Amino acid sequence: MINKENGVACYQQLSKILIEQIEKGIFKPGSQLATEIELSKRYRLNRHTVRQAIERLEDEGLVYKIKGKGTFVADYKIPYKVSKKTQFTTSILDVGLNPDARLIDYYEISAGRELSKKLNISASDRVIVLEILRFVNKVPFCHTTSFLSSKNFPGLRNFIDGSFSLYGLLKKHYGVDATRASSTFEVSMPESSDMDMLNISPKVPMLAVKSISKDQKGGMVEYCITKFRGDMCSVSVDFNGEGR
Amino acid sequence: MINKENGVACYQQLSKILIEQIEKGIFKPGSQLATEIELSKRYRLNRHTVRQAIERLEDEGLVYKIKGKGTFVADYKIPYKVSKKTQFTTSILDVGLNPDARLIDYYEISAGRELSKKLNISASDRVIVLEILRFVNKVPFCHTTSFLSSKNFPGLRNFIDGSFSLYGLLKKHYGVDATRASSTFEVSMPESSDMDMLNISPKVPMLAVKSISKDQKGGMVEYCITKFRGDMCSVSVDFNGEGR
Repeated sequence: MINKENGVACYQQLSKILIEQIEKGIFKPGSQLATEIELSKRYRLNRHTVRQAIERLEDEGLVYKIKGKGTFVADYKIPYKVSKKTQFTTSILDVGLNPDARLIDYYEISAGRELSKKLNISASDRVIVLEILRFVNKVPFCHTTSFLSSKNFPGLRNFIDGSFSLYGLLKKHYGVDATRASSTFEVSMPESSDMDMLNISPKVPMLAVKSISKDQKGGMVEYCITKFRGDMCSVSVDFNGEGR
Repeated sequence: MINKENGVACYQQLSKILIEQIEKGIFKPGSQLATEIELSKRYRLNRHTVRQAIERLEDEGLVYKIKGKGTFVADYKIPYKVSKKTQFTTSILDVGLNPDARLIDYYEISAGRELSKKLNISASDRVIVLEILRFVNKVPFCHTTSFLSSKNFPGLRNFIDGSFSLYGLLKKHYGVDATRASSTFEVSMPESSDMDMLNISPKVPMLAVKSISKDQKGGMVEYCITKFRGDMCSVSVDFNGEGR
């Protein structure tokens, strides 16, 4: 499974494999990780490389060492970074996991009172609604509903592609450089649509992040609500860095 | 209850009273708010002032109007703002509510592996642990556990006062200008200590915010974990403003 000639450091390949195994529950929270010796035999790597891979997991808080006992799997939550320029795909790739997305629905509605305020348009203006389900290592991870003013983004539907990078599409086709202006974090228990889409039990709490993004001139671009599986993620904000 | 001579606009006083009544459950989520006529009689205010007060509640998302039916109470969550310079007291006063705090515990421990990493000290160094319970309108709202390096803040215990403004104390007594560097948001179901302290049922999800603050030179100051009642708050982050 380790390819020594693909240009990716072996310890990085191993840490990615181990993250996936923790994710899949092969190594469960609180259980012992395979030892350095076992891993070096199994993947034909030297002990130093194995140690580097485990140190990386330790730095990310995925495993912890107990002296004289071994390495154990921490209660694992995918660390998801939110910044002015967050993109789901990049954030997930950065932590060595595989992102994926599926367009669930695309339709238009009248703005009404709430959305007209959020998007700074009239209540009778039309609004594009975009529903996207996102996956990490093939497991449903979060569900996003985006609202954009129809008159600002005519023909958006035609530009939707497999990347689902909305900010990328807005930049490419409309010259709009969107950045996140604010995010509000709330918790709730799942509604039945959340349970269906994310394939979770009614006991799993949800983390809802409601965000506003603006263009380079300060005009409203998007209001979006992302509902994460609360048991799978921790969402972090850096108050200094610009992020990407 | 409205004082026309205390320098605070009457509509602001009324909106504060109404927020408190919603908070206390006198007006429950989904139920109708008293009408403009009722409120103007009860508080001896003109209709225009009452309307202004209700508009303010509407702007904050606490109530919504249904045409021809009246004004209804929204599912109320206290909007709590987090920024580089957040202070609990100011954030709560800003939304017209009454903050309060109680020191629950103060002790020292050895840093150990986890805290030594967070605070950038040795595992054998001593760490101050400060537990504070915070209230909004006398209802327990969140519980904060702060960790600070003992050697950086000798005698901190003697400086703790009724304000519980930790940043204020650090600035005054140690010349440390602490600002929030990062925050991580997680959800979880309450542990038994959470239920006791916040007086909630096992069904109320918690919003945990884990934050790192640094001094003006970039040195680690504090690692803290705040657990909010998830049913009572929404926590928002402004990515542009510096906040206070």
